[in-house]
Order: sequence, then structure tokens, then C-alpha cells
Amino acid sequence: MYVILVYDICKEGNGQKRWNRVFKLCKQNLVHIQKSVFEGEISDSDLFKLEGSIEKEIDKSTDSVIIFKSRNERWLDKNVIGLQQDDPFMI
Amino acid sequence: MYVILVYDICKEGNGQKRWNRVFKLCKQNLVHIQKSVFEGEISDSDLFKLEGSIEKEIDKSTDSVIIFKSRNERWLDKNVIGLQQDDPFMI
Repeated sequence: MYVILVYDICKEGNGQKRWNRVFKLCKQNLVHIQKSVFEGEISDSDLFKLEGSIEKEIDKSTDSVIIFKSRNERWLDKNVIGLQQDDPFMI
Repeated sequence: MYVILVYDICKEGNGQKRWNRVFKLCKQNLVHIQKSVFEGEISDSDLFKLEGSIEKEIDKSTDSVIIFKSRNERWLDKNVIGLQQDDPFMI
């Protein structure tokens, strides 16, 4: 399965810690393409585990994680305007 | 065509102005679902115009806009963990 994962973590309180942990979880499974955006091929079981881990990390009252799933990367085209994901400037 | 648009605009210098203008352009064409994330159905011609307008607004050396295009929304499933897009908390 091909997924696009975007998250918005509220930085108040221990938000930066939550942001870092969600970033780390995503980086272990997907490709980092923009500040809070990841994409990549992932198995159903790994995605299930990732979603479970993220669910434990975030504060559901302030944070948002959205995962788009496509059965096949071929059904998705991608257009990048500006910085490419491998630009060193990309954090 | 169904698209997911994510952007990361560098806030230095007149970055906030660029961010606001890109936000406005996207809001006129798509649904706002997360801080810098939009999705929605859009015609080829409207998408072409939106991409052109965004291209004029951003600083390509610091900003990044990624547009995922799917011929059909049916090929995309979506899972939201935490805040839903219509939560008033969502900016």
C-alpha cells in the first residue's frame, strides 16, 4: 500500500516532544518529503502498528494526523513546486 | 481529478505574506483539512491555473508545494487520528 501521511502537532506544553516522537516513528517507516509530510510504500501490518504507535503519542484534543492510503502508487501523480525533498534546506 | 496539496512556506522575510496568499489561493479551490494541507476535487484547467498562481507567489529557493493527484477519489482511503478537519480548534 502507498501512503501519504501529514501531521499537525500543537507545540504548546510538551508538544515539541510529541512532534519529535511522531517524526521519529514516521521516519522509521516512510520517506520524509516536507516538514510534517511523509510518503511511501508500507505493508498493512506495519501501517497498523505505526497508526497504533502514533495514537499513543499524540494529544487527540490538539493534534491531527491524516493518512491517505492508495492501493497502488501508480494511481497517484506528484507535482513539486519549489524545493525538492532532497534539498539540504528541507528540514 | 482528486488532489491533496501540502505546502511548507519559509516564514522569514515576507514569508508570512507568501503563506497567506498561498493559503487564500488553495482555500478558493480546495478544502482546508490541516494547517498547510488541502484536498478536494478539481478540474484539470483549474488545477493548471492554481499551480501557475502558486508558482508566482512562492520563493522556490525556500518554499515547497507538493500536489498529489489521483484520477479518482475512490482510489484513496483516508484515516484521521486526533483532530478532525471541522474542529473549531483547527486553524
